[in-house]
Amino acid sequence: MKISKLVGERTKEVPSGVVAKSHEYLLRAGYIKQVCNGVFSLLPPAYRVQAKLEKIIREEMDKIGGQEVLFPVLMPRELWEESGRYSSIGSEMFRFKDRADHDMVLGMTHEEASVHMVRNTIKSYDQLPFMIYQIQTKLRDEPRARAGLIRVREFIMKDAYSFHLNKEDLAQYYEIVKQAYFNIYKRMGMKNVVSVKSDSGMMGGKIADEFMLISDIGEDSLVVCDSCDYSANMEVADSILDLYDSKEETTELVNTGDAKTIEDICALFNIQPYQTCKAVCYYLAKSQKYVIAFVRGDLEVNEIKLRNLLQEEVLPITVDHPKIVAGYIGPKNFKEDNIITIYDISLKGAKNLVVGANAKPYHIKNFSFERDFTPDKFEDISKVKEGQVCKKCGKGHLKIVRGIEIGNIFQLGTKYTESMKMTVHDKNGEEINPIMGCYGIGIGRCLASIVEESSDEKGIIWPYAVAPWHVYLCPLRLDDENVAYAAEKIYDLLNKAGYEVLFDDRNVSAGSKFADSELMGIPIRIVISPRSLQNNEVEITIRKTGEKIMCKEGELLEKLKEIVKNIG
Amino acid sequence: MKISKLVGERTKEVPSGVVAKSHEYLLRAGYIKQVCNGVFSLLPPAYRVQAKLEKIIREEMDKIGGQEVLFPVLMPRELWEESGRYSSIGSEMFRFKDRADHDMVLGMTHEEASVHMVRNTIKSYDQLPFMIYQIQTKLRDEPRARAGLIRVREFIMKDAYSFHLNKEDLAQYYEIVKQAYFNIYKRMGMKNVVSVKSDSGMMGGKIADEFMLISDIGEDSLVVCDSCDYSANMEVADSILDLYDSKEETTELVNTGDAKTIEDICALFNIQPYQTCKAVCYYLAKSQKYVIAFVRGDLEVNEIKLRNLLQEEVLPITVDHPKIVAGYIGPKNFKEDNIITIYDISLKGAKNLVVGANAKPYHIKNFSFERDFTPDKFEDISKVKEGQVCKKCGKGHLKIVRGIEIGNIFQLGTKYTESMKMTVHDKNGEEINPIMGCYGIGIGRCLASIVEESSDEKGIIWPYAVAPWHVYLCPLRLDDENVAYAAEKIYDLLNKAGYEVLFDDRNVSAGSKFADSELMGIPIRIVISPRSLQNNEVEITIRKTGEKIMCKEGELLEKLKEIVKNIG
Repeated sequence: MKISKLVGERTKEVPSGVVAKSHEYLLRAGYIKQVCNGVFSLLPPAYRVQAKLEKIIREEMDKIGGQEVLFPVLMPRELWEESGRYSSIGSEMFRFKDRADHDMVLGMTHEEASVHMVRNTIKSYDQLPFMIYQIQTKLRDEPRARAGLIRVREFIMKDAYSFHLNKEDLAQYYEIVKQAYFNIYKRMGMKNVVSVKSDSGMMGGKIADEFMLISDIGEDSLVVCDSCDYSANMEVADSILDLYDSKEETTELVNTGDAKTIEDICALFNIQPYQTCKAVCYYLAKSQKYVIAFVRGDLEVNEIKLRNLLQEEVLPITVDHPKIVAGYIGPKNFKEDNIITIYDISLKGAKNLVVGANAKPYHIKNFSFERDFTPDKFEDISKVKEGQVCKKCGKGHLKIVRGIEIGNIFQLGTKYTESMKMTVHDKNGEEINPIMGCYGIGIGRCLASIVEESSDEKGIIWPYAVAPWHVYLCPLRLDDENVAYAAEKIYDLLNKAGYEVLFDDRNVSAGSKFADSELMGIPIRIVISPRSLQNNEVEITIRKTGEKIMCKEGELLEKLKEIVKNIG
Repeated sequence: MKISKLVGERTKEVPSGVVAKSHEYLLRAGYIKQVCNGVFSLLPPAYRVQAKLEKIIREEMDKIGGQEVLFPVLMPRELWEESGRYSSIGSEMFRFKDRADHDMVLGMTHEEASVHMVRNTIKSYDQLPFMIYQIQTKLRDEPRARAGLIRVREFIMKDAYSFHLNKEDLAQYYEIVKQAYFNIYKRMGMKNVVSVKSDSGMMGGKIADEFMLISDIGEDSLVVCDSCDYSANMEVADSILDLYDSKEETTELVNTGDAKTIEDICALFNIQPYQTCKAVCYYLAKSQKYVIAFVRGDLEVNEIKLRNLLQEEVLPITVDHPKIVAGYIGPKNFKEDNIITIYDISLKGAKNLVVGANAKPYHIKNFSFERDFTPDKFEDISKVKEGQVCKKCGKGHLKIVRGIEIGNIFQLGTKYTESMKMTVHDKNGEEINPIMGCYGIGIGRCLASIVEESSDEKGIIWPYAVAPWHVYLCPLRLDDENVAYAAEKIYDLLNKAGYEVLFDDRNVSAGSKFADSELMGIPIRIVISPRSLQNNEVEITIRKTGEKIMCKEGELLEKLKEIVKNIG
């Protein structure tokens, strides 16, 4: 490809309002162009990278027995009503009426379509297990599109669906897919990828993992152990709680005036937050009840854990109920039908706390759980804190880092096969619902994530396997006949040897050419100049290391082979 | 691939309501599954064919300098308002509001998106010409989805956009694309493909060609010359009119009673339809005018030609206007502001016609144009008739055949670059609007069209280059150890030699296996049976010809090579 004809331009100016490196570089280097909020066109260099990412994914999916299919983007309401998700999914799903006034939706995921495809043709246990996948445009009406290709409303996704006779078979295959995902990210050149236990959200099912590229611009908080391989999404992470023992003292009612917050209370009593009990109020819109969640004062309520416990969405609220004294709420059995109290395990055995007295303006000092009040049950509803001890290995300390979600896998169970009435005969001739797994990778987000991990102040540094071109051929002084001749000869030589070459055939300064090659992130640059040709040499520069190598023209292919072996 | 794990099933039953062979076979052989009206999922065999079609298209587009990109499916109203098409396109475009209440559309074509991508980066004549293309899901709310993948609401399309400095450059490139299209269809294995001049419809521009596969199930009527290479869509086809000369006789007013139609008049006067003059009424909704189109009685009005002439949609109506006497309309100057009369060239010099007298219940006999009435102008507004003489070669006769539109190309001109304000500097530094061309191929429709052309009463006959698998490996009596061993060995051998093999590993009858291999259309079947193995032989059957070849196991690869050379 000659750069004079390449569609797209390189610019020096940093576009305004851009926070992520990948967003900046992909715009500045002519890879993407925004069409509207969260919607982008991919220019030729980006398309070339995406095609390589897709090829890697296809190869790894095929290796684990995947059969590629294509589901439609456009689906009728009826299909989504079968699973119940037409009503359970909110405004992130695009919906509209077609010309015949039928309700239609745009696919954001394809569990329903996958069951629809196979339910009448897969009838017997010996047709299981199987996995089907597709690579296709997904549309989601994201409320907060951000950071270029990191969070968008339209993207290409690989989504896969597997069907199994039993849970054990799914669990086994799930691990195979997990390994395939690690292979995919490795082949894409990503390094700091972890899988974390996660919440399965709207997908249904209980076991789910997210693949995270550790990155400061990530939206997710991850908990990782500094000693073992434990990692989890903050939403579901567990830890061993720090316990603070002390001799139980006598309770005392104290007028605390306007002191309501944990901070106020700590200052007033000269104590640490772990010596208090925090009460946080929520509302359950569906069952129209209030929830008071109690956690030890140094911890936070994990709303995902709370939602999973209550099996209902929880809305944080400023409470307005005659029996709840905001600012002074303390542990007790609220004997009201519309008030639910939940006590975190951090409060089990906690002694000498300052807690609300359920009366204004009073708190109780030296309150001890299991002496002064014992709830029916303690639940795990708190967020992990940096530095807590890892529950898995029992010795490492937990760190909280940020990550970009670059894939997710779910053990769905029978949510879809049951609701959509897909059955197969098992070995005994009984009809059972197959157990499903599903597996997603957002390809555009992978592209951007690679740039987040692999770039410097000059621009992108593409891993060799996914670079839009392998070589940036950079003749200086094309008006010099010898240079022009050598450049065309080398261009031809490299193309024939299977290298993808971007030929900078413009009549611009060496500085501009170098800047563009670095901004675009092409792994290898070959400079041909009148001076280098005097020694029959060309200059090779490795983008990643900046290393420069002078190389005889006749030895170029051999040298490149060696370089690719090292960086490829 | 082993067929026991292949997703999808083969059935003998012809699904009800299916009219096209491709629809029947693609359903029955487990290639496609309908999700809703005009929307299908592709099962693994169909996806494999589609991927091969895409590869052929990519290679041919790349050969003529195409740069692959990806535009979004989701676009904002504003982009389509720039070109004026937000209002000029009707209900075939899906429209809805996003969560922020913005009007959005789904892409049915991408002229706007292509100009949006390049208008700020292409600034100078020396960046022209270039061509960008994408392969992507398109959504169109077709009022009449039909015939399986032939006419659908969602499909994968290759669409390409070229930009040129002047018309000559576009005209030259247009011919290059035309040749690339013929190469594509040839490589896909389609034989009876013609390109026909067509109407450019909603795309804008004047020159357009459609690529048609001649097929009885086609929706389009094509006019082809039996002597030269002239071919055109009926919508725009031209011909030399048959002329009927006779001696002018004296006009005569005749009371024709209830005789109004051409048929009635012919019977009453004992004459042929060419001896009459037909008047057809239309309404122009935009300019609120009536149109009376006059053609010779043996011809039909071509409404596309009429629309192009009037530059406005024409609606056929039963007229209701005090000055228009339905059933008795005849040639005259209607001096009303809201009545337009158009006279077809078939009437120029026509003599001794029976025409309406514009008064009930009268017709005029022996009416001669240019003697009794001369309109300001004669226009070409009639449809070509089978058997007319070809205007291009002047000797061949025209045939009317049916065709499936499998691609189209347009010389767009500056419709989009002008309205969307894309300019480049020409050699003199003047700002000009680049001239555009656009080029589409519906890939799913190609897939179905191949089946329409290449199938028999047993099922599909895939051309080798696009077959989902090359070889159907068909061991009989897999319970026989020798057969099982030989089958696995040959499966391995063929896979390693690069053949794509569908291995029928089921324990079903030979008849079922043969029927499935024929229904699915796999080009080569290899049967291994206990009997054939006694002579160390296998039986090869060519799907296309039915030819059977016995082949020594050791000579299989050599034999296959020879067969593929012949059928590939």
